[in-house]
Amino acid sequence: MKHLLLSAVAAASLAHPTVAQEPTPIPSPGEIAAAAPASDWIAIAPSDLLVMDLAPDAKGKPRRVVIQLMPAPFSQGWIGNIRKLAAAHWWDGTSINRVQDNYVVQWGDATEKKALPKGLVSVAESEYVAKSVRDFESVSSVNARAFMVKKGLKGPPPPFDKPEDVYTGVVGFAAGFPVAGGPQFEFWPVHCYGMVGVGRNLSPDTGSGAELYTVIGHAPRHLDRNIAVVGRVISGIEHLSSLPRGTGALGFYEDEAERVPIAAIRVASELASAEQPRFEYLSTDNDSFARYADARANRRDPFFIKPAGGADICNVPVPVRAMSGGK
Amino acid sequence: MKHLLLSAVAAASLAHPTVAQEPTPIPSPGEIAAAAPASDWIAIAPSDLLVMDLAPDAKGKPRRVVIQLMPAPFSQGWIGNIRKLAAAHWWDGTSINRVQDNYVVQWGDATEKKALPKGLVSVAESEYVAKSVRDFESVSSVNARAFMVKKGLKGPPPPFDKPEDVYTGVVGFAAGFPVAGGPQFEFWPVHCYGMVGVGRNLSPDTGSGAELYTVIGHAPRHLDRNIAVVGRVISGIEHLSSLPRGTGALGFYEDEAERVPIAAIRVASELASAEQPRFEYLSTDNDSFARYADARANRRDPFFIKPAGGADICNVPVPVRAMSGGK
Repeated sequence: MKHLLLSAVAAASLAHPTVAQEPTPIPSPGEIAAAAPASDWIAIAPSDLLVMDLAPDAKGKPRRVVIQLMPAPFSQGWIGNIRKLAAAHWWDGTSINRVQDNYVVQWGDATEKKALPKGLVSVAESEYVAKSVRDFESVSSVNARAFMVKKGLKGPPPPFDKPEDVYTGVVGFAAGFPVAGGPQFEFWPVHCYGMVGVGRNLSPDTGSGAELYTVIGHAPRHLDRNIAVVGRVISGIEHLSSLPRGTGALGFYEDEAERVPIAAIRVASELASAEQPRFEYLSTDNDSFARYADARANRRDPFFIKPAGGADICNVPVPVRAMSGGK
Repeated sequence: MKHLLLSAVAAASLAHPTVAQEPTPIPSPGEIAAAAPASDWIAIAPSDLLVMDLAPDAKGKPRRVVIQLMPAPFSQGWIGNIRKLAAAHWWDGTSINRVQDNYVVQWGDATEKKALPKGLVSVAESEYVAKSVRDFESVSSVNARAFMVKKGLKGPPPPFDKPEDVYTGVVGFAAGFPVAGGPQFEFWPVHCYGMVGVGRNLSPDTGSGAELYTVIGHAPRHLDRNIAVVGRVISGIEHLSSLPRGTGALGFYEDEAERVPIAAIRVASELASAEQPRFEYLSTDNDSFARYADARANRRDPFFIKPAGGADICNVPVPVRAMSGGK
């Protein structure tokens, strides 16, 4: 829920409404997601969560970042390497080394001399794209479903003639992640805010997975199909996005002391059960998500006076939330 | 220039190339802009710059943010108010009060009790949109010009059939700002990263200009035509985007001590001449900009292996740079 109600007083009065008989306002996208039945939410397996603990901040507060790894068939070569790196505790003692405004935060071994664990694979550039994808929900399908729900219609959905994307022909969601598609039925993950990718040097290098970054600005979609996307930050991104910007070329920290130490990175299933974070995402193939996406594209909740009539794929973030009882 | 070269060593080796006989690489968008002739750059009048000095940071370093105000015919009612507020030194002693991740940083009077200066106008919602716009350069025109330049062609540009935007029919640039257009020849500024808007309460309130925010995340285009956009941050946005996120509703700081004091906000022409910042932007109606925009949409510089084939309006930021001799 991200109203741009711009006074603290107004925000407080919304949180504690005092007028009882106003008509029910049209729900915001966040309210639609929150009201979705439990069956529309899918729990994320702890084995698909990467938990990064930074050194505590200046006030001694812990800083935990949780990353959801992408499901098959996307980027599995790099993700296999990442699992091995985490199992080897390879990142412990490495650091956040680069923070470039409106672009990326990047972490790994600043010395570039730390030996990699054995058994990492070298992944081909062809793996930036997946050849076939199960359960792809195009934005057209989502929009058509929202239209059917609103009108109370059954039967085949109506044709949908708005452009979906200015970068490629088709965009939508696969297993809860934003993806784009091309004419040969190939699909690839897109670089939205919070997505996590694999640093690399010049082609044909594709990176091992030891150097990772996350997006902290406007979606740099020109990176799609040029770098492997392996997941997204689902909790704690503020510990990365609010770091001081680096003053060196490309936002690298110039002074070693500016680097932020990484205490540990683990796959959550390696943690003690009570310590495992638990998250779930809103599945995209149901009426709840269709209504949510429609509301993102056509805001009608009280603050808004003019629905946009559309939304780009990165402005329809898939809802993810902590599960009760989780850490 | 924002390569995602992901090793510090690689970045350093690019900065100091040692191999002399490599073929000249295809220039990056930033290199194309830097090579544009001086006549393609337009100086920004000091009277159109708003200079915000925050209290120094924890290490005593100054924090200056420079905002370029939008030109006529956009949002001039609010901008007139902003000039009066700055002339009255109204913001001095106010603060940054809200930092919401992937959304906005907002500043103004946290108490909401400070009396506004006399003479502010109340602006109608109809002013979110400008009825006619001089010098509008559509993305289609920019792309067609790039095509003509590349092919060495003269004469009428070819038809351009790619979608320009998923939010509205037409997008492009007016006086160096990103704007969108509708079917009735109306135009409005769009919410890209760094754009500055006017906080308001519920409609029909449109805000006075005393509460301002800037975008620090993926373009929230759903705010277009719902809030007045009055300018953009052209220098120092890192002093806002790297602030700790607020933990209250909507990212408001819960503890008064978290607020960042604003020492002063001035229109630059009020400052002593030697203290005035000087900036210029790349005009959008020339071949240099067309090549720049084409390169943003189709990266061919050495890091990239797959040009995107398109770019959304907020992924083609208009180049702005400090002028030599300026502060």
